[in-house]
Amino acid sequence: MTPRTGKPEPIPPGSTIGILGGGQLGRMLALAAARLGLKTHVYSDESESCAFYVATETTRASFRDQARLAQFARRCNAVTFEFENVPDETVRGLMQHVRVAPGPEPLRIAQDRFLEKSFLQQQGLLTAPFHNVTSEAQAREAFPALGGRAVLKTRRLGYDGKGQRTVKSAEEAARAFVELGGVPSILEGFVEFAFETSVIAARGENGAFAAYDPALNEHEHHILRRSTVPSGLPENKVQEAFAMAHSIAEALNYIGVLGVDLFITRDIGLLVNEIAPRVHNSGHWTLDGCTVSQFEQHIRAVAGWPLGDPVRHSDAVMQNIIGAEAEGWKQLAGQAGLHIYGKRVVRPGRKMGHFTTISPLK
Amino acid sequence: MTPRTGKPEPIPPGSTIGILGGGQLGRMLALAAARLGLKTHVYSDESESCAFYVATETTRASFRDQARLAQFARRCNAVTFEFENVPDETVRGLMQHVRVAPGPEPLRIAQDRFLEKSFLQQQGLLTAPFHNVTSEAQAREAFPALGGRAVLKTRRLGYDGKGQRTVKSAEEAARAFVELGGVPSILEGFVEFAFETSVIAARGENGAFAAYDPALNEHEHHILRRSTVPSGLPENKVQEAFAMAHSIAEALNYIGVLGVDLFITRDIGLLVNEIAPRVHNSGHWTLDGCTVSQFEQHIRAVAGWPLGDPVRHSDAVMQNIIGAEAEGWKQLAGQAGLHIYGKRVVRPGRKMGHFTTISPLK
Repeated sequence: MTPRTGKPEPIPPGSTIGILGGGQLGRMLALAAARLGLKTHVYSDESESCAFYVATETTRASFRDQARLAQFARRCNAVTFEFENVPDETVRGLMQHVRVAPGPEPLRIAQDRFLEKSFLQQQGLLTAPFHNVTSEAQAREAFPALGGRAVLKTRRLGYDGKGQRTVKSAEEAARAFVELGGVPSILEGFVEFAFETSVIAARGENGAFAAYDPALNEHEHHILRRSTVPSGLPENKVQEAFAMAHSIAEALNYIGVLGVDLFITRDIGLLVNEIAPRVHNSGHWTLDGCTVSQFEQHIRAVAGWPLGDPVRHSDAVMQNIIGAEAEGWKQLAGQAGLHIYGKRVVRPGRKMGHFTTISPLK
Repeated sequence: MTPRTGKPEPIPPGSTIGILGGGQLGRMLALAAARLGLKTHVYSDESESCAFYVATETTRASFRDQARLAQFARRCNAVTFEFENVPDETVRGLMQHVRVAPGPEPLRIAQDRFLEKSFLQQQGLLTAPFHNVTSEAQAREAFPALGGRAVLKTRRLGYDGKGQRTVKSAEEAARAFVELGGVPSILEGFVEFAFETSVIAARGENGAFAAYDPALNEHEHHILRRSTVPSGLPENKVQEAFAMAHSIAEALNYIGVLGVDLFITRDIGLLVNEIAPRVHNSGHWTLDGCTVSQFEQHIRAVAGWPLGDPVRHSDAVMQNIIGAEAEGWKQLAGQAGLHIYGKRVVRPGRKMGHFTTISPLK
C-alpha cells in the first residue's frame, strides 16, 4: 500500500485528465470529463482507439515507452486508466511526474487472480475456494478438495471468459493447465450461485465513499448481456454489499470508481468474485439512470473534486450491443438511451455499444 | 423555401458531423454526436473555441474562406451550425458538397428581425407590433402607434440584449437609431408580459415532430438566468405553443432542433418573440431531465435518424453560470447536473456553464 501524504488540491476546469487506454471506457470517461470542463489526453497503444475521437489530445505509443509516457505525464494534471492490464510499472513511472489515481497497488492486485483473492480473504471477505497452480501436478492435487467441479483460470490477462476452463476431474484440471499455456493459474471451486450482482462504488480524496445501487447482471457466453436496477437483492444484502465494497476501497486507499463483482449463493450469501479498479460495464446504466454517472464520478475522484450523489432517478435496464448486433444500427437508432462506441471493426464478442431503458422508480 | 427532394439515408455510426461554430452549443452537440458513435468536425473562426477540445477534427478559418469550407465539407457526411449568425452564403456554398441541416432559409429568416417577424405574421402567429426602421425619420414616425413605449432593435446580430434600446418618445427612438449605428432596425411595441417561455422542438427528415415541455424562463440583465420545467403554463397553452412551433417548423421545412421564444401576456395570450434555428439555452435542462437531450435530438435530425422521445423523467431547474460566477468553481463542484464549458477567458455576461437540479415529477 502506498500511503498518500497530504491531499492534493482539486484541479480546476481547463486542466487535462490523462487516460491510459483508448477503448469505450476511456471514451466515456473523456466525455464525462468534458462535461465538467476538463480537457483529456488519451494514451493508447492501438491506432484504432475509439476514445481518440473525443479526446482533446491523443498519444499512440507503447505502455513501455518511458519517453512518451514522461511527455504525456508532463501534459496532464492527473492521470487515470480505463483497463486493469496497464503495466503497474507504467503507473509507477508516471507517478514520478503526475498524480495518478487509482494508484499502482489496486492495479497490481486486480491484475493477478491469486493476489486478488488472497487480498480479499485477508480482508475477511468470502470468495470461492482457490489454489495457486503453477504445474500440472499442482492442478491435479488441488482438484479433489474443490467438490467435484472447478474452474482453472490464468492468474493474469483473463476477461469475458477468456483464459478459463471448467473442469470435472483432476485429469481435466491438469490438461486445462497445459491448454491455457502452462502459465501461473488458480484452480477455483465452482460456485453454484443464484445470481450475480456488482457494486459500483467510488472513494474520493477525502475518504468519502459513494455507491450506486447494485445491478442484477446477466451474462451470455461469459459476456455481460444485461444489467437491471434495482437488482431485487434484499436491502440487508445491499447494505452488506456496500460494506464489502467500502472495506475493499479503504484497504486499498483507493481513489476513483471501483467495480466489485459478487455472487449471491443460496446457502452462504455474498461472495466476492472479482474487483475491477476502474469504471465497469455493469455501471453503464448510471449514464441514463443517475445525474452523476460512474464516469463523472471517477473523473471527480481523480480530479480531487467532491464525489457526486449516486442517487438514481429512474429504474434502469442496460443491454450491451455485442459483435454483429451493431450492424443492426438502423433498427437500434430508434432507441432512447443509446450509446454507440464508434469502433470501426466488428468482431464476435466485441462490445460495440449499449442502450439503457429507464422507467419510473418503483 | 428550398424544397428537399428525396429523403437522404440515415448516416451510419463512424460518420462525421460537421459543426459550424465552436461555442458551448457546438461543444454539447459534439458530445451528443459522440454518444451516438458519430465523429465530429468543428469549424470555427475563433482560435479559443471550447468545442475544439471535444471534436474529432477541427478547422480554424473564416466563414468566408471558400477553399477551407469546401475542404471541410468533403470531410463531413452532414453539416449543421450552432449559431444563427453563420453567413447564409456559407451554408449555401456548403450545400453544393454536403447535406446541411437546417438549411439556409431558416438561417436567413432568423438572422433578420424584420424578416423573422414578417414570416411569423404570414404564418398567422401573433407577435409584438413592429415597424421597419431605416432612418431617424422612420423611427420618429413609427413611435406614436406603439403605445408610448417601444424597443428599437437592430435587424441583425443582436443577442442577450445587445443591439437594443427601450425608448419612451419619438425623439428617443430617433436617437436610439443613431446610437445603435444607424443600421437597419425595427421599432417594436413594448410587450407587458406575465412570463416568458420557450418551446424546444425538433423536426426530422421524415416530417416527424417532437417537442419538449416548455420551460419558464427568467432573465437578468437580458441574459437567461434560469429555466424551470414544468413552466406552470396551463395544458391548453402548452398545446397551443406546441402547435405554433409545429407550424413554424413545417413552414420552414425545418430539419433539426428549433427554439421558439414566447411571451405570455395576460390579455392576448401567446406571442412569438423570436425563433432560434438551433439548440437553445432554455433547453439545456434536457441534458439532465430527459433521456434524449436537445443536443442528441438535433444530431438525430441532422443525421437522418429517427427523433428520440422528448419525454421528461424529472422536473428540472437549469441555472446558468455567468461571467465571474465561474471563478467559484470549487463551490460549484459539489453540484450534480453540472456542466462547465471549458472557456479559458471569463468575461462579464459570458455563459461559462450551467447546472440543472432535478426532482421527481410532480
